[in-house]
Amino acid sequence: MELAGGRPPRVGIVGAGQLARMMAQAAVALGIELRILATRFDESAARIWPDVVIGSPDNAKAMERLAAGCDVTTFDHELVDTVAVATLEASGLQFAPDSATMTVAQSKRLQRERFSALGLPVPAYEIVEAGSESLQGRVENFSRTHGWPVMVKADRGGYDGRGVWMVRERSEVGPVAAIIAEMGVAAVMEAWVPIDSEAAIQIARTAQGQTATYPVVETVQVNGMLDELHAPAELPLALEEEAAATAKAIADDLDVVGLLAVELFVSEGRLLVNEIATRPHNSGHHTIEGAVTSQFEQHLRAILGLPLGSPALRGPYVTTVNATGQPGGGPLEGHLERALVVEGAHIHIYGKSHRESRKLGHVTVVADDRQAALDRARRAARLLEGRRENDIGAA
Amino acid sequence: MELAGGRPPRVGIVGAGQLARMMAQAAVALGIELRILATRFDESAARIWPDVVIGSPDNAKAMERLAAGCDVTTFDHELVDTVAVATLEASGLQFAPDSATMTVAQSKRLQRERFSALGLPVPAYEIVEAGSESLQGRVENFSRTHGWPVMVKADRGGYDGRGVWMVRERSEVGPVAAIIAEMGVAAVMEAWVPIDSEAAIQIARTAQGQTATYPVVETVQVNGMLDELHAPAELPLALEEEAAATAKAIADDLDVVGLLAVELFVSEGRLLVNEIATRPHNSGHHTIEGAVTSQFEQHLRAILGLPLGSPALRGPYVTTVNATGQPGGGPLEGHLERALVVEGAHIHIYGKSHRESRKLGHVTVVADDRQAALDRARRAARLLEGRRENDIGAA
Repeated sequence: MELAGGRPPRVGIVGAGQLARMMAQAAVALGIELRILATRFDESAARIWPDVVIGSPDNAKAMERLAAGCDVTTFDHELVDTVAVATLEASGLQFAPDSATMTVAQSKRLQRERFSALGLPVPAYEIVEAGSESLQGRVENFSRTHGWPVMVKADRGGYDGRGVWMVRERSEVGPVAAIIAEMGVAAVMEAWVPIDSEAAIQIARTAQGQTATYPVVETVQVNGMLDELHAPAELPLALEEEAAATAKAIADDLDVVGLLAVELFVSEGRLLVNEIATRPHNSGHHTIEGAVTSQFEQHLRAILGLPLGSPALRGPYVTTVNATGQPGGGPLEGHLERALVVEGAHIHIYGKSHRESRKLGHVTVVADDRQAALDRARRAARLLEGRRENDIGAA
Repeated sequence: MELAGGRPPRVGIVGAGQLARMMAQAAVALGIELRILATRFDESAARIWPDVVIGSPDNAKAMERLAAGCDVTTFDHELVDTVAVATLEASGLQFAPDSATMTVAQSKRLQRERFSALGLPVPAYEIVEAGSESLQGRVENFSRTHGWPVMVKADRGGYDGRGVWMVRERSEVGPVAAIIAEMGVAAVMEAWVPIDSEAAIQIARTAQGQTATYPVVETVQVNGMLDELHAPAELPLALEEEAAATAKAIADDLDVVGLLAVELFVSEGRLLVNEIATRPHNSGHHTIEGAVTSQFEQHLRAILGLPLGSPALRGPYVTTVNATGQPGGGPLEGHLERALVVEGAHIHIYGKSHRESRKLGHVTVVADDRQAALDRARRAARLLEGRRENDIGAA
């Protein structure tokens, strides 16, 4: 990207969640200016940044107001109107990732189709078109070939486990079909696969095709939401290499500009591609303190065409544990004093209002010992959530 | 500090320079709210923070407007009206460090007197009161005992080498005396000492007297301004321990709440105390990536009475090199692309306008090898300043 007279680059961000917030911390260091599209001034990133445009990511005018003043505009989430983005691109505004990439990123169906076309291993699946009356019958049919349970996923609109259902038997199909009909989207039916473990890998890619690939991390999901991650994943070398090759293949195929996170299943010793995010992702939060280059700085470098940084880990073991809203737990800020006692706990609070099960922050620990990293990060995260000593146990 | 209902603590910062800016990055992670007193909206920290009060640190009303809405107020620099701060303290507002500590922090004379009273080793010195007509004669007298050159320092108002003069002979006294008379401050005359090397040490202290001491760093000054720092300093263990004890003695004596940086001379194998800053300091910038807890997070923890974090280094060797305005170099942002190529270079740009010799940013490298850390940090800093490849040499 050519910048006139050495002036700071300005990056637009659609969305003002915690990803935009952590991108802002990285932008400050590099002297990069940001302009953030928020729906309200009390959103996570809008609370800590002065240049905020209020508007909806569904509104083409708001998107234009944001992007028009920026060298390049990127995304905090996928819930955007990609047709509006494509129109703005046609008028000369620059988005990274672009509307074509974002269209795939927001669609579980398109992801499955693209990954299959690339020859990547995915669970067996079939698509049911939006508005189809026959989801009940199709799921039953699918189960005859692939057995129960059947995973049913809304093509678009889901996140953090929402929009994904494990359907155990025919009587459970009806309620899911009703929700999907209400959402007005296609459905993806997938064969349930036994999961040995889950993993994720981050890769950054520039418009010129330069890439930098982070070591694979092991992820632990609870209720469809990432709860913990451990770096590096202790995978056989062949799977580590396969994961890196998979991430590269997807990044190139989708022409990703910026960060790409690929979520993977390890099933009976084999990798399967689950889904992707074309932006910094919860599975890469450990990189802030745990890698030479954080995923947030890396994303900014990639979308601005700057040289990518080293993705190497900064210690033998890194664990990140999410802190979520607990019943009666209240804001995380109220528990800082207890959580900060934990040695080496890097605490991140997102500045979001308390709601049960909502991701409100995370804790990262880098240590020479895998168990120590895990124990301390878990302990600090539980304390930060406001849990009692009795509910945590020794660590 | 008691905070009602788990609401985020709010910290006021007097001054909007790069220290406030880097404090803001740390505050974001901990969910701490800031309110920054800036003289203009385009100051370093005011450019990246939404809650800014415009006003002068010399203006008691502006200080009150800032502090009244904050749980505690701290400082980006020493150039404040400590009488106004004391008045606000009397009205119940809380400052950390407090007006008594700040009064010493902004006075080279009071520092010398306090350090001497503590029995700490300082160069031989004498004070010349403000408004004295006899500076010429006093310096000549002083030189008869201690030889030339004589170091002459303005009691207050200097920074980054300004307000400090090495006077080599009697004919050089006049111009210095004229400047000091113009400043209207007392002067400190000090014996010149041969300097083997310079060092600095950071210590954090809470109001309850809890402390955390960082490893000593070696500093390299150019024209009275910190240019490079290397951690850890390669000092004999006895000096390392003496430095830590010195920092603790000063922190306790001045009742420092927050960060204290102590600048030291190593002269003929002995430590001498040079001067202090009661806030995060340039000599601690390496802690952002180079220590488990950055000095900025540590300062916030200390002034809020939160538990202090580990000051341990995160790698065997850490080097930080300042980037300053070069003739024709232009803004650092224009050179990001070249500087980011350097492996492991953590770049910090302060968002300040270009002016020759002005500190505009810094680069930190953590490495397993001392020379590699130094070479890479230097190289990235020189590239960031806009220097040509020929002027840098291989690294």
